[in-house]
Amino acid sequence: MTSTLPRTLTRELPQHEGQTVRLQGFLHARRDLGGVQFLVLRDVSGLTQCVGSGLELPLAESSVEVVGRVKAHPKAPGGFEVQVESFRVITPAVEAPPVEIPKMEWNVNPETMLDYRVVTVRGLKERAALKVQAELVAAFREHLNTEGFTEISTPKIVSAGAEGGANLFPIDYFGAPAYLAQSPQLYKQIMVGVFERVYEVAPVYRAEEHATSRHLNEYLSLDVELGFIESEEDVMALQNRLLAAIMERLKERCAPEFALLGATIPDVPAHIPRIPLMEARQLVTEKYGHAVGGKDLDPEAERLLSQHYAETEGSDFVFVTKYPRAARPFYAHPELNADGTPNAELTRGYDLLFRGIEITSGGQRIHDHAMLLESIAAYKLRPESLEGYTEVFKYGMPPHGGFAIGAERLTAKLLGIANVRYARAFPRDRHRLTP
Amino acid sequence: MTSTLPRTLTRELPQHEGQTVRLQGFLHARRDLGGVQFLVLRDVSGLTQCVGSGLELPLAESSVEVVGRVKAHPKAPGGFEVQVESFRVITPAVEAPPVEIPKMEWNVNPETMLDYRVVTVRGLKERAALKVQAELVAAFREHLNTEGFTEISTPKIVSAGAEGGANLFPIDYFGAPAYLAQSPQLYKQIMVGVFERVYEVAPVYRAEEHATSRHLNEYLSLDVELGFIESEEDVMALQNRLLAAIMERLKERCAPEFALLGATIPDVPAHIPRIPLMEARQLVTEKYGHAVGGKDLDPEAERLLSQHYAETEGSDFVFVTKYPRAARPFYAHPELNADGTPNAELTRGYDLLFRGIEITSGGQRIHDHAMLLESIAAYKLRPESLEGYTEVFKYGMPPHGGFAIGAERLTAKLLGIANVRYARAFPRDRHRLTP
Repeated sequence: MTSTLPRTLTRELPQHEGQTVRLQGFLHARRDLGGVQFLVLRDVSGLTQCVGSGLELPLAESSVEVVGRVKAHPKAPGGFEVQVESFRVITPAVEAPPVEIPKMEWNVNPETMLDYRVVTVRGLKERAALKVQAELVAAFREHLNTEGFTEISTPKIVSAGAEGGANLFPIDYFGAPAYLAQSPQLYKQIMVGVFERVYEVAPVYRAEEHATSRHLNEYLSLDVELGFIESEEDVMALQNRLLAAIMERLKERCAPEFALLGATIPDVPAHIPRIPLMEARQLVTEKYGHAVGGKDLDPEAERLLSQHYAETEGSDFVFVTKYPRAARPFYAHPELNADGTPNAELTRGYDLLFRGIEITSGGQRIHDHAMLLESIAAYKLRPESLEGYTEVFKYGMPPHGGFAIGAERLTAKLLGIANVRYARAFPRDRHRLTP
Repeated sequence: MTSTLPRTLTRELPQHEGQTVRLQGFLHARRDLGGVQFLVLRDVSGLTQCVGSGLELPLAESSVEVVGRVKAHPKAPGGFEVQVESFRVITPAVEAPPVEIPKMEWNVNPETMLDYRVVTVRGLKERAALKVQAELVAAFREHLNTEGFTEISTPKIVSAGAEGGANLFPIDYFGAPAYLAQSPQLYKQIMVGVFERVYEVAPVYRAEEHATSRHLNEYLSLDVELGFIESEEDVMALQNRLLAAIMERLKERCAPEFALLGATIPDVPAHIPRIPLMEARQLVTEKYGHAVGGKDLDPEAERLLSQHYAETEGSDFVFVTKYPRAARPFYAHPELNADGTPNAELTRGYDLLFRGIEITSGGQRIHDHAMLLESIAAYKLRPESLEGYTEVFKYGMPPHGGFAIGAERLTAKLLGIANVRYARAFPRDRHRLTP
């Protein structure tokens, strides 16, 4: 029979010292010490050590109920233990878990951990990472709402890629060719015409063949777009305020999770430092002797540039600005020359680096219809394939810009998780389609 | 040159009576009356009538800036107008919009409206519908957060369908067969083992060939799952509280949108009436002479049952409970007989009807591993194809249940929008893959 006591959570135990409570959760661990039984019950709010004797204990991970008396106990997790008065198995585990949940480490057999993700995801560190991500996303929305943004939901089945044709997953849409959206880029721009300031939190898809520790084939994109701006400075200023609000909330709500993972929550400077890409490449070469390949920053250059700003300005963040057109898509707004004409080389696009890795691409977008058509021609793209995109620019789109943050990459970097796959509940990668 | 005044929004005008303000927005409408020019500026917060003369006005939908003096004017929208001191075109429209935005009606040429959605979505009613949906979704999250739920993000690329094999969109996943997820059913159940109470707001996909006014091929699903329940009554009680919280928030924040659309926000009873499906079928037949086909309720029966509860109990909502196994998927928890054995016919699944239409399927799920395998056999499904699903039930899953609400269908029904496609920014249907 079920006790008539209301359920108490682990985190509420201090309010119930000396009282009898009813706990429910999973049997996290068990130990027999010469007739005295220690069982650790895991619920959503933490671990409770329970002490009893003569109990018929089921396999680990069974869901169980304990009714017992709360007693202060300095050595128990949380400072309290429960002396078992009655014990009930709610649902027995029928097999021992393939991995001992209390002893898991990410660095041991990472593929095995992901193969058994349906149960390894119950681990305390796994849970902490996903909890931090949920709070991060909630803080993202909450802050943008205070700045007058509206949440949107845009199609993930599209007829063409927003970033060009590469890296798309094909879908059979009632016999017609379609693709999974790489980004809500076009749609969030259209919606600036409706709500002026919009955001979306939704999955995006990149069919990238290579497997790296920083890429996922499906990830949660935190997308922002705002209209009636003067330049990309307005976009960076918004992102600066947003990051500060996110870290503030994480400090309030996720201190235990950061402690468990041995990670620290960064301070966000009131004005995150900015450096134009060309100067950044030069700095890295001159200060660290690292020759930067390509037109962008390579991973080592990102790391060194971050190191520089951490050392000289105490900032974990740096905006790298004025990306060249060659490293940006056709819709990036060109930098303007002193006479107001578009600069042929540079854009108003930026990246944000955090602790050595790019976590955002953003910038101002082209809003002028004629300029957009010229850019499409300059990029040697077929204007017909972009008609759906260019159509809306006939109707007075205001100057606008935005950015996107990969939720898992930011979570992983915040928590010091080396592989971004562990910042997603059920990651998809080149070889992983289950669970 | 840009004025140095900060931008003022339409809704802030009453605080600025007699002052000069700077407005930015879209040129919603324009009229010349013998030298006096009326222009209506649309920003995110409403419409402002501006009065000037000698202005060179661009095409409708251009984005524009007006600097002028705020004057009380009872006949103007909002009770204030702005006397133009200076006027600037921010971005000119280069073509007149294909449809006059202020004069659009959903019932005129609905397909044309969707063809030109990139600009018709700017219409006031279109915007109101999407705004209501954004608030509805925010209220959904906010209430669940207060009840200790955690937000999750689960894969939309899956190796098999949660509801069986039908109606799946195939994806080419690096050469391997995969599908778009019909529902996060399995994944939200797994995550009950981690956070006990979870929700997800994300797109889901149904490759249904038929086009109806109530179905979309891509829609936003509001998914909930909670563990450590006693029965489906706990799930319905949660949904009852949740709906009350959502309608409360809509009353606080969306009164203008409901007024614009001529719709009323329902009162949610403290205890939404419940009726078992078999009794509901009988009631509809006896009271209204409607013979119900199939094993469920047909659309006419849903309408009549809702009418009955509106008339007799003043409730816009009714739970239809105890669905037969034949009308539910294999994971639905059977009703229990008095001796605790599973009932062979009935489940603990329910539907929620709102104003004549089903807006939710929910219920308790099977948590016992042996019972789940028996159910899979009874449904004549191949257990191998469900191994990923059954795996987690080896590890002590507590009794749990949940439900899903289609955000667009609820929005449409709340606002009296006859076709659910107008409750989505960019709908996907049998023939529509763009914009």
